Amino acid sequence: MNLKVIAFDADDTLFINEPYFQETEQKFCGLMEDYLSHQGISQELFKVEIDNLKIYGYGIKAYILSMIEAAMKISNNTIPVEVIEKIIEYGKELLEKPIELLDGVEETLNALHGKYKLVVATKGDLLDQRRKLHDSGLGHYFHHIEVMSDKQEKDYSDLIKRLDIQPSEFFMIGNSLKSDVLPVLAIGGHAVHIPFHTTWAHERIDYKVEHKNFNTFEKMIDVLKRLQ
Amino acid sequence: MNLKVIAFDADDTLFINEPYFQETEQKFCGLMEDYLSHQGISQELFKVEIDNLKIYGYGIKAYILSMIEAAMKISNNTIPVEVIEKIIEYGKELLEKPIELLDGVEETLNALHGKYKLVVATKGDLLDQRRKLHDSGLGHYFHHIEVMSDKQEKDYSDLIKRLDIQPSEFFMIGNSLKSDVLPVLAIGGHAVHIPFHTTWAHERIDYKVEHKNFNTFEKMIDVLKRLQ
Repeated sequence: MNLKVIAFDADDTLFINEPYFQETEQKFCGLMEDYLSHQGISQELFKVEIDNLKIYGYGIKAYILSMIEAAMKISNNTIPVEVIEKIIEYGKELLEKPIELLDGVEETLNALHGKYKLVVATKGDLLDQRRKLHDSGLGHYFHHIEVMSDKQEKDYSDLIKRLDIQPSEFFMIGNSLKSDVLPVLAIGGHAVHIPFHTTWAHERIDYKVEHKNFNTFEKMIDVLKRLQ
Repeated sequence: MNLKVIAFDADDTLFINEPYFQETEQKFCGLMEDYLSHQGISQELFKVEIDNLKIYGYGIKAYILSMIEAAMKISNNTIPVEVIEKIIEYGKELLEKPIELLDGVEETLNALHGKYKLVVATKGDLLDQRRKLHDSGLGHYFHHIEVMSDKQEKDYSDLIKRLDIQPSEFFMIGNSLKSDVLPVLAIGGHAVHIPFHTTWAHERIDYKVEHKNFNTFEKMIDVLKRLQ
């Protein structure tokens, strides 16, 4: 391998994210439980989120707007305004969650730093992702952060063009097979999957990936087996 | 000048933006006029927007969330849910506005294309800015789009580092003295101001800029006087 850039997904790859969303969703379900079962509420929220993805994109602001819309829909517009106020409050709390690094992240970055150009490649809200990277204390390991509007093949091709490298010089590490692995392999890059214990429904795929440029590792530190 | 990158602000530099926000704000004031004068409503909304800037950043999703919050605040939580539904509807309309290019933009890009690396440097929602650039038909003139979480000196320094150039090789064109001109001059770059007939209160400054690396031009096409 002649690698130039190693890109790390952020949420649930460098630090914890999805559990915070799930915690917020549980609180949202609690607010709405007079109208529907928790499972029914989650399903309605997911539908609204997916419908809005095309216009809002990813990130917490989109999530807050979708919770508000779902609350109106589920309650047939009978929801008290105070509930909407609560939703906004929960959303703002989500934007201020502490950063909890995942196992072995810092050791891995420390080992790779100086040998490759390291970047963060993530979806979500621009400001929120920058804030999290800053608060993580990992910022100095990375050349820069790429906040992507989506992680499909086209988005990775654009990223690689912007980095002025070839696809074969690009190595992606992340917890989502759908977003961090498959599109990267499809355009000729390298990818490592580090599963996280919980994944957002939208990111789940249920088949096995096998590819010469691909590995799954249980822990981040294991990527050094391929990179040193 | 030994320039490598020419960066263009997008909103109200390449295409119309602020009038669409003002149109939405008028509709918002219309929804709320039982509670306060239009001027009073605008002032409250602006206060909420500025308070939220630190946590939400720029862009339409932040604007929708701030309108909802302002509506609850102005009405002391007596606002009907249907008004919040309308606000979300207006916000989504804003995300789907047609693109109207400003005078001379295409001729200017055409003249500069191939001579310099051209990029778009803009604040706002990632997906929304990409959508607008795509719909503008100008995408092929640009190497890429940089969506910035803010446009302060630090943000431009980061941008220049990411572009692997020196500040003196960077030339910024935009309609905001505060965001497109002053921070760029401060870090040693070049800037051109092309005033737009209307500016968001947050972007206004009321003093005159004089600097050897700076010009004001009435129309975009006039930048060719400095670049050819």
